[in-house]
Amino acid sequence: MTTETLNTDTDTAYVHGYSPVEARRLGDQADTLAALLHEGTAYPPGSRVLEAGCGVGAQTVHLLTAGPDMRLTAMDLSADSLARARDRVSAQAPGADITWVHGDLHRLPFPEASFDHVFLCFVLEHLADPVAALAALRRVLRPGGTITVIEGDHGSALFHPEGPGARRTIDHLVRLQAEAGGDALIGRRLHPLLSEAGFGRVEVRPRTMYADAARPALVESFTRRTFIAMVEAVRPGALAAGLATPEEFERDLAELRRTAEPDGTFLYTFFKATAVNP
Amino acid sequence: MTTETLNTDTDTAYVHGYSPVEARRLGDQADTLAALLHEGTAYPPGSRVLEAGCGVGAQTVHLLTAGPDMRLTAMDLSADSLARARDRVSAQAPGADITWVHGDLHRLPFPEASFDHVFLCFVLEHLADPVAALAALRRVLRPGGTITVIEGDHGSALFHPEGPGARRTIDHLVRLQAEAGGDALIGRRLHPLLSEAGFGRVEVRPRTMYADAARPALVESFTRRTFIAMVEAVRPGALAAGLATPEEFERDLAELRRTAEPDGTFLYTFFKATAVNP
Repeated sequence: MTTETLNTDTDTAYVHGYSPVEARRLGDQADTLAALLHEGTAYPPGSRVLEAGCGVGAQTVHLLTAGPDMRLTAMDLSADSLARARDRVSAQAPGADITWVHGDLHRLPFPEASFDHVFLCFVLEHLADPVAALAALRRVLRPGGTITVIEGDHGSALFHPEGPGARRTIDHLVRLQAEAGGDALIGRRLHPLLSEAGFGRVEVRPRTMYADAARPALVESFTRRTFIAMVEAVRPGALAAGLATPEEFERDLAELRRTAEPDGTFLYTFFKATAVNP
Repeated sequence: MTTETLNTDTDTAYVHGYSPVEARRLGDQADTLAALLHEGTAYPPGSRVLEAGCGVGAQTVHLLTAGPDMRLTAMDLSADSLARARDRVSAQAPGADITWVHGDLHRLPFPEASFDHVFLCFVLEHLADPVAALAALRRVLRPGGTITVIEGDHGSALFHPEGPGARRTIDHLVRLQAEAGGDALIGRRLHPLLSEAGFGRVEVRPRTMYADAARPALVESFTRRTFIAMVEAVRPGALAAGLATPEEFERDLAELRRTAEPDGTFLYTFFKATAVNP
């Protein structure tokens, strides 16, 4: 699960790419996952909130739905993503009080204690030094302010039928993300990362997505159009890196696709953390 | 996660053994997990309920707490376990209407449609043919009656720090259980298994246990005293099978124990299914 990268590298370092298809996938994904991920997150009227790494605005619109009267600052490293996020928010939340910032998480363009709350979703997974990023975000958060972090963990993918090929396609994604400096297995580490960055009252809760034949809409929107689509999107990178031949990649992908058939099942766990700047 | 086996083999086939320490572990485990696993399960007064594979009664007392006025039949293959279950229930739910049956899941000693509800917890994982067992249970369930099945899935174990040794100790357990004819990765298969056995309206929900330094009591009761204790209990079997030397086993176990340290995290997903006999 991903949104736009905040790597200081060029855009091409973003493991999922920046194509229109990818932007649509991120939109579908956010809609499907919204209830699961955003439940419990609503910022009070007037509060100053920073969304760091807003990407194409997939999560931004959900934040604004839950807290329409907050004062939101949405930041991203990619000017192109930011433009798309602005279009999306204009269409879906036209009256929102929102400031768009083209900026880098590693050089935050805000004074200390500028925000009451910070929100990140699918951002830390792309960073080479997530603790440094969290510590930087803590400095722009007022004492007593909160941070909310949502991440996936590809090691949580559990499915039937199990198979080495299906597992291999996911491993390609994990490996390419690691080579780009990220960590696709970061969800399980949120507690130690936030603690190390100086946050207090760290609370992590798993949020589990599970789909089987009893929930065909979820099989379609999550298993197929979110997870398998994400794995499929690494095909060019996996082939270029020599991780698989085109035939091997197709065969392994077919194995993963079996989990979306009527006798298949698919489970994925997200991690949602909240913590306080002491 | 386990309770007494219903294998038709001798007692020694039960991968976790029958020692008093094991019985206490199962009791601790049931207490810790009770809220997570039993939430939503309460049988109405007067309803005829079969608990198949009640073991030492670890789940039985929770069933009786939630539905004290049901008419419960508790069955197990092990006379010794059944005696312990009876003691436990006498102490904790003395007035319960309960019939104890020393019987085999593969040769159910009940007429057709004898029960309104059937309940199984940590039983299918030990069976060579879970579909046959479910189909047999369906025959003693009245039309319109429900079945509730709870199972773990060791493939869901997700932890920090991750390490090959920690993973290996879990693999020993999975392998020994497979060699005894069971499947420690059965949770993800509940939907297809129940469907294949002829049940309708199959609904599976994951129930996730997660422990980190913010919840030290859960680290102690679940990560250490339930999961790691279970893995540790396969030491004799793993050594006898030549899966590891004593030194290797200790080193790998130490790696798994790291997940219960203050910077560690541990997650495990149970699967709870309900279905209807059409």
